[in-house]
Amino acid sequence: MQQTRLDTARIQAMRQVIDPVFLNTPLYRCEALEPILGCTVSIKLETANPIRSFKARGTEIVASGLADSGSRAVVCASAGNLGQALAWSGRGRGLDVTVVASRFAPRVKLDRIRALGATLELVDGDHEMAREQAAAIARREGIRLLEDSLDIETCEGAATIGLELLEAAPSFDTVLVALGGGALATGVGHVVKTFAPSIEVVCIQPLGAPAMTHSWHQRSVVTTESTNTIADGVAGRRPIPAVLDDLLLVADDAVLVREASIIAGMRMLLEHAGLVVEPSAALGIAAIIEDPDRFAGRHVVTIVCGSNVDIDAYQRWIGEEPIHRS
Amino acid sequence: MQQTRLDTARIQAMRQVIDPVFLNTPLYRCEALEPILGCTVSIKLETANPIRSFKARGTEIVASGLADSGSRAVVCASAGNLGQALAWSGRGRGLDVTVVASRFAPRVKLDRIRALGATLELVDGDHEMAREQAAAIARREGIRLLEDSLDIETCEGAATIGLELLEAAPSFDTVLVALGGGALATGVGHVVKTFAPSIEVVCIQPLGAPAMTHSWHQRSVVTTESTNTIADGVAGRRPIPAVLDDLLLVADDAVLVREASIIAGMRMLLEHAGLVVEPSAALGIAAIIEDPDRFAGRHVVTIVCGSNVDIDAYQRWIGEEPIHRS
Repeated sequence: MQQTRLDTARIQAMRQVIDPVFLNTPLYRCEALEPILGCTVSIKLETANPIRSFKARGTEIVASGLADSGSRAVVCASAGNLGQALAWSGRGRGLDVTVVASRFAPRVKLDRIRALGATLELVDGDHEMAREQAAAIARREGIRLLEDSLDIETCEGAATIGLELLEAAPSFDTVLVALGGGALATGVGHVVKTFAPSIEVVCIQPLGAPAMTHSWHQRSVVTTESTNTIADGVAGRRPIPAVLDDLLLVADDAVLVREASIIAGMRMLLEHAGLVVEPSAALGIAAIIEDPDRFAGRHVVTIVCGSNVDIDAYQRWIGEEPIHRS
Repeated sequence: MQQTRLDTARIQAMRQVIDPVFLNTPLYRCEALEPILGCTVSIKLETANPIRSFKARGTEIVASGLADSGSRAVVCASAGNLGQALAWSGRGRGLDVTVVASRFAPRVKLDRIRALGATLELVDGDHEMAREQAAAIARREGIRLLEDSLDIETCEGAATIGLELLEAAPSFDTVLVALGGGALATGVGHVVKTFAPSIEVVCIQPLGAPAMTHSWHQRSVVTTESTNTIADGVAGRRPIPAVLDDLLLVADDAVLVREASIIAGMRMLLEHAGLVVEPSAALGIAAIIEDPDRFAGRHVVTIVCGSNVDIDAYQRWIGEEPIHRS
């Protein structure tokens, strides 16, 4: 494998920096899903922690570094989960955290960012506008801008999931990874391709937010004018070139799934795994639903990356069709 | 503390026997619950494993012992979770597992027991009738009868949760434990009272299945004629004297909660923690809801002991009142 921007030794060392509450997350087979999906399914559960997503693996590294260097403040744009994570990690280290988010982000995410003590600035636009605003604040205030997926800590933090996958059960055929900005996919992909290159890394994005997937297939950045998906956590329009370069080195495929499949995946995880997940966390199951032949008989692990969902919206989605019966 | 039937050294040793997929489960603060409940709340999550409850901690010990001694078969009565656990643990060791359950047990539990390869026998009565039938099968077949809460492995397996609680964060004031037959309460209670006796152990049972709680308060076994609760996992009528003796040594209190509080607890765990739980797993939150003054300002840990719930029943319960808003 050609060199990504990630450093394997640093990823291993960072496990000492990240609060253990975010590490060694559950990894287990979910046999109840298997007759329906036609393959062996394991779940890597990143929701049973204080912020209900994997994002603190990265922000722990960022906040620790800032505290060590005497920095006092940091700003990020967030679809909602990175902001919670940075707020949590920064609070514990006495940092002033500012989060810029779209006012259309799920209420539960915005509420939690505020509750964790961060300053929340809302923009009247999408995540790309929030990114611009966060950059402007960083320039104006002279403080650290944390850019998800571009800043290596976010990728290397996510990469610690890859180490855990390989340590616990190296018998997987395929890892299914939600694809948004690319931190999770390049992080996990880097580790898998470094230590177990025969394991397939498949990235999944919604058809309604396909920019990074199109970019991966075309091998150059493709942007879109808008997004249209319930999977708010992965709804970017402007892939970052350096992240795409890494993704080209570590991903075996990038696929797009329909909204109906994301909802069906959420419903299956509820009924057969007892898990409430946000739409982005159901992308892996959605990929199996859309192409069962591809995964038939294989052992697939899907990273359940977040559970921050407005329950009323969740109930509406889940209730749109009769619950699937085994 | 006077001696319970449990052995601390054996509990510690048993962690080498139990499959790691059931150990070192998530333990984390859930700050979103705290403003509502008026205390610091940590969750010990026992649902993110292949059988979605803590019961395999005990059945791993049982099945391992049987396999080591050359036994081939085992039978248990189960409200549904022990049966899944024994089926899982027995399957991996080549044991023939028979589970006797009430035909009124949740369908998801019965389906999973069968799917895990156990022979399922249904009785046309409640859990106490299943216990009698399991004993009859064991006598007839000359095989091991596993009796939940009476057999020490079930208590000592559950006790490994106590070790994890104390290792991870010894700053709790109170541990809230669902009380049914008593394996979980005596197991966790034994460890807490051995190593950190100032931590309060509070057991919670539904008002509709109060036999063990009444027994604890009267210091002698009290049975009931029937049960009436949605918390199927703790709906016993005939406490076991030896288990009551242990419970008297390790529990600081045993309290009863209403069905409406159990449902409110399930709803809170869904909305503010993103967790689907079975009714028994919401008993701890229900206890705080019913008596907030008692827990005000304290750091409480509640063991979320299972998530095997029929989703249609769950949705009906959750939907009975408007979802609680923060």
